[in-house]
Amino acid sequence: MPLDALVFDAYGTLFDVHAVIDRCEKFWPGKGAQLSQLWRAKQLEYSWLRSLIGRYQPFSALTRDALGYACEALGLALDEAKTKTLMQDYLGLAPYPDVPEALAALKGGGRKLAILTNGSPDMIEPLVKNRGLQSSFDAVLSVDPLKTFKPAPRVYQLAVDSLRVPAANIGFISSNGWDALGAKSFGFTVFWINRGAAPVDRLGFQPDGMLASLGDLAPRIAH
Amino acid sequence: MPLDALVFDAYGTLFDVHAVIDRCEKFWPGKGAQLSQLWRAKQLEYSWLRSLIGRYQPFSALTRDALGYACEALGLALDEAKTKTLMQDYLGLAPYPDVPEALAALKGGGRKLAILTNGSPDMIEPLVKNRGLQSSFDAVLSVDPLKTFKPAPRVYQLAVDSLRVPAANIGFISSNGWDALGAKSFGFTVFWINRGAAPVDRLGFQPDGMLASLGDLAPRIAH
Repeated sequence: MPLDALVFDAYGTLFDVHAVIDRCEKFWPGKGAQLSQLWRAKQLEYSWLRSLIGRYQPFSALTRDALGYACEALGLALDEAKTKTLMQDYLGLAPYPDVPEALAALKGGGRKLAILTNGSPDMIEPLVKNRGLQSSFDAVLSVDPLKTFKPAPRVYQLAVDSLRVPAANIGFISSNGWDALGAKSFGFTVFWINRGAAPVDRLGFQPDGMLASLGDLAPRIAH
Repeated sequence: MPLDALVFDAYGTLFDVHAVIDRCEKFWPGKGAQLSQLWRAKQLEYSWLRSLIGRYQPFSALTRDALGYACEALGLALDEAKTKTLMQDYLGLAPYPDVPEALAALKGGGRKLAILTNGSPDMIEPLVKNRGLQSSFDAVLSVDPLKTFKPAPRVYQLAVDSLRVPAANIGFISSNGWDALGAKSFGFTVFWINRGAAPVDRLGFQPDGMLASLGDLAPRIAH
């Protein structure tokens, strides 16, 4: 199966959402890792729940809400200045170390590269730019115009429509197991970057391939 | 606002899903609480994700899958006999101590009482029967015919259609904050039993009332 496009999840796949741990730890010593985990868990939970109840809000607002909940649940005082700093950090999240080189190796040969993300344009566009990755991608696709989040099938359809490549000829890469399986259910050829060596979620599908890091992808899809 | 019907969530609200801890602890000493937490978290996650990707399966099968994942993730050996025992335990989950008396106090005066649950009929019907609660309810409504899970709005609509009571005249009671807010978004009058004294999730709604236990409901809705 020739892959005419590679579509990447952003948060957790290209960019390390837990890069905020250092700042959290500075603000609330001893609580950084726990806060980062709960913040991320609530961010995902709110994206699923808002999709289900039909109450979309941009991922930036949802991420701020998830931070507020996580701090309240852990008894950590959060003020406007701390919120602003942490949300600003989200616009500069570090990519995983292997990402820039791996993207360079995947580009070329007429293959399109794109991001497909829950992130609203006010989050993802500054992030890609701040990290100097604009030239790596032919498109940066946000769920925002659809007013719903992954893993709703019409989010994945957005990549098919925008790139004009059939689903089966799109290689989709995510570190989020549920996103990988949502994309597989939709019809993409899916690679799961299983950085934490977690079990496959039991949602009725298996990824087409598992990778330890993004650097492992190029040899797997060489023609 | 007169409440002509009271509709209760089942798992976590009337019945204690963590009543399985003792059995888990017996099977895997020292791991009972952790397994029960992860099992429940995955059960909810799978219900949301399957709704979003449009791959419904009955809650009984989904609960079995969540158990399998949780054991694999924690490195606990699960065989067919242990699975069968734990799934059997789910058919006899203990109600919270205050539940039978509270239900008796709420019944009467022409007010309808019902359960609205993610649980498939093969799970919820034996459970209600095993715990001798059939006569407490006018209806036990499962999402199963709709092939989706809470908090999809059409699940809450099922109660309106089945009980023939307008949404605003239905009092909905759940211990699951996301379920309470999904029901509020739909239009019910909502009471959240906040047993864990958790913050309100930031989904754009507030419950109409918060209760420490089900016993607190009757005085709150007295005419």
